[in-house]
Amino acid sequence: MHILLTNDDGIHAKGLHALYDVLAPHYRVSVVAPESEQSAVGHAITLLNPLRVREIHLNKNFLGLAVSGTPADCVKIAINEILDTPPDIVLSGINLGANVGINVLYSGTVSAATEGAILGIPSIAVSLNTFKDPDFSFAAHFIRKLIRRVTELELNSATLLNVNIPAVPPEDIRGIALTRQGISRFVERFDKRMDPRDNVYYWQAGETHFIREGKDIDTWALSRNLISITPLHFDLTNHAELNRMRQAKILKDILKS
Amino acid sequence: MHILLTNDDGIHAKGLHALYDVLAPHYRVSVVAPESEQSAVGHAITLLNPLRVREIHLNKNFLGLAVSGTPADCVKIAINEILDTPPDIVLSGINLGANVGINVLYSGTVSAATEGAILGIPSIAVSLNTFKDPDFSFAAHFIRKLIRRVTELELNSATLLNVNIPAVPPEDIRGIALTRQGISRFVERFDKRMDPRDNVYYWQAGETHFIREGKDIDTWALSRNLISITPLHFDLTNHAELNRMRQAKILKDILKS
Repeated sequence: MHILLTNDDGIHAKGLHALYDVLAPHYRVSVVAPESEQSAVGHAITLLNPLRVREIHLNKNFLGLAVSGTPADCVKIAINEILDTPPDIVLSGINLGANVGINVLYSGTVSAATEGAILGIPSIAVSLNTFKDPDFSFAAHFIRKLIRRVTELELNSATLLNVNIPAVPPEDIRGIALTRQGISRFVERFDKRMDPRDNVYYWQAGETHFIREGKDIDTWALSRNLISITPLHFDLTNHAELNRMRQAKILKDILKS
Repeated sequence: MHILLTNDDGIHAKGLHALYDVLAPHYRVSVVAPESEQSAVGHAITLLNPLRVREIHLNKNFLGLAVSGTPADCVKIAINEILDTPPDIVLSGINLGANVGINVLYSGTVSAATEGAILGIPSIAVSLNTFKDPDFSFAAHFIRKLIRRVTELELNSATLLNVNIPAVPPEDIRGIALTRQGISRFVERFDKRMDPRDNVYYWQAGETHFIREGKDIDTWALSRNLISITPLHFDLTNHAELNRMRQAKILKDILKS
């Protein structure tokens, strides 16, 4: 099995190395990851600037390619240009911080896996629910087991799995939940400041206030120390609303009006 | 009615001014748009840098605010910090170039409207299917009519409309189609070059090869000179795959293995 490993925290991030250390003894692992942190880039791709690719030898065990772009760029250039054979799985992470609810839309970690799914390759995004310097080893070993199951499952090729793991000791993990993405809104705050030359600037801040949405959503599972696994796709159509609009004939004669 | 107008081509783009000129005589229009081109930024938000906001007076008719960030940043800061009253509609565009199929995921134009929908405001992304310097006036007048209908329709607040308009003379527009998002893949190409110091770099290029997916998709409608309107949402859950995975019990005993 050939695994393409990437992330959005950059090629030097501990979460990526934790996966590499667990997987490289057993599988071919190609690392193609951003050269710098790319958090909250969403599904950005780089069209207005050229991309550069640079080899990173950290020690005798680790060889990776650092790309001057976004997570989605990394997956595109790896599969279309760099790798001699396509990977069997695209793996993105381990991200520092959960990617659940509306956060999924802003996540570079998830976008890399989305790009893998667009290119027809089973893909997994994995995040750990903490911003502190954590022990990634339980998460990395869990992903090794999950990869085997995903291969058996024959995941729909247009689907990626968004995996979020509680940052608690392994004995406190209460199980696994297959979930749907929560859609609770953020409550945002912009921190307004003055620079030394008396110009105003803003920091984007604020907390996520999760609305109660039911027990089958990602945020609920994570808050109960369950590993959350959500199958995502990239068809954004709101089919229910599409049907309603068709029935409402809302657009009738609009061109003649 | 109060309209928040933004885009991803930047505050100086002709497509934005075409909408402003048609709408400003009739409605309160607040312009909060990126200070520079933000194409293909996807749903990126700016967390690692501060945001700056600057007034732009182009002439006695036009006052707008330029933000040093992405389209999603513009909508967030406008609604959460800048505007005294929330807008009734978020309008993003008119983009130079269609946003259909998989392109929707990379689109800053669509992400601004998505952000509006996340914040609970009816939102519309509008794109014109050309990269040449077009006449935006038909598209702008069509959007004015559409806004009135959307207000009547009482769009589900978690839905945005993705509108794509053929760049043909008005008499060649064949009608309007309510469509779903296509999911055809790109065929990508990376153009490998050497810089003057003999370092390799790549330009992301390539064409979209649309697979035939049926007559109700956005790309098909646009290719037949129909205006395509797709209701989108931001729940990325693949519900069919979620049900299948639950039935397959694929995760049974994985923690014990």
